[in-house]
Amino acid sequence: MKKKSKSGKSKKAASKQFALKRTTAKSKKVADLKYIPWNEVELETLNPLLQRQLIVGHEVMLARVLLKKGCIVPLHSHVNEQLSYIHEGALKFFIDGKEIVVRSGQVLTIPPNMPHKAEALEDTVDLDIFHPPRADWLNRTDTYLKGK
Amino acid sequence: MKKKSKSGKSKKAASKQFALKRTTAKSKKVADLKYIPWNEVELETLNPLLQRQLIVGHEVMLARVLLKKGCIVPLHSHVNEQLSYIHEGALKFFIDGKEIVVRSGQVLTIPPNMPHKAEALEDTVDLDIFHPPRADWLNRTDTYLKGK
Repeated sequence: MKKKSKSGKSKKAASKQFALKRTTAKSKKVADLKYIPWNEVELETLNPLLQRQLIVGHEVMLARVLLKKGCIVPLHSHVNEQLSYIHEGALKFFIDGKEIVVRSGQVLTIPPNMPHKAEALEDTVDLDIFHPPRADWLNRTDTYLKGK
Repeated sequence: MKKKSKSGKSKKAASKQFALKRTTAKSKKVADLKYIPWNEVELETLNPLLQRQLIVGHEVMLARVLLKKGCIVPLHSHVNEQLSYIHEGALKFFIDGKEIVVRSGQVLTIPPNMPHKAEALEDTVDLDIFHPPRADWLNRTDTYLKGK
């Protein structure tokens, strides 16, 4: 019998409430050769503390995420594998029962379906790599990021 | 009938001679949560002008490639999709019949199986993203990079 939390839900069931839906696309376009300066990529403002730019390949996506100090990325999970490379600043991740501060020049690899939350301890430039590309970021259904 | 080059080979057949073999792994380990500072990742020297570090996820790999000015990455191709983000310096790519100079803050997306060569115009820090991970880089069979 699976161990259950006090609320009567198993850990797996509890984590499902944070699981984002439709984070992968059903149809995939062909891969292209593309030369892209970041300064020509749309800078999208999600909330006053959070902006991002997206470069989309075929099976991978590279996001440049700009977080102001104090920005909170709410607890969520997705089937997409994620690598987060902190370019400048520091992010505190709440993940797998741990708090992990990832600073400039450090990387966190996040397996598919692992719930995580993040807090910007400083103004931060974060490079996120996703496989496959985050469909919810591309079709703008990522309402979990658009709160205050 | 397919158009052939003067050598009697089709463009596709000619490109095959640069195609690296065994660049993807047959067995895949499970994805892990990993926290990795770059300064704790082995710095591998491939030739006097070329060094790299690898962070390997499940379906994606992030490589930090250090190229000294004048370094040449010989013409090659691989089934792995590639995104190259130039962090510092400048790389000139020879790809798809074009020369594309990718400078600091710019990205090149390279589709699977597209032959490419690169030359470092300056001392360069390049972040390469591959899907799936480059098995030939992991098992050190990438002899094409170990020449002078």
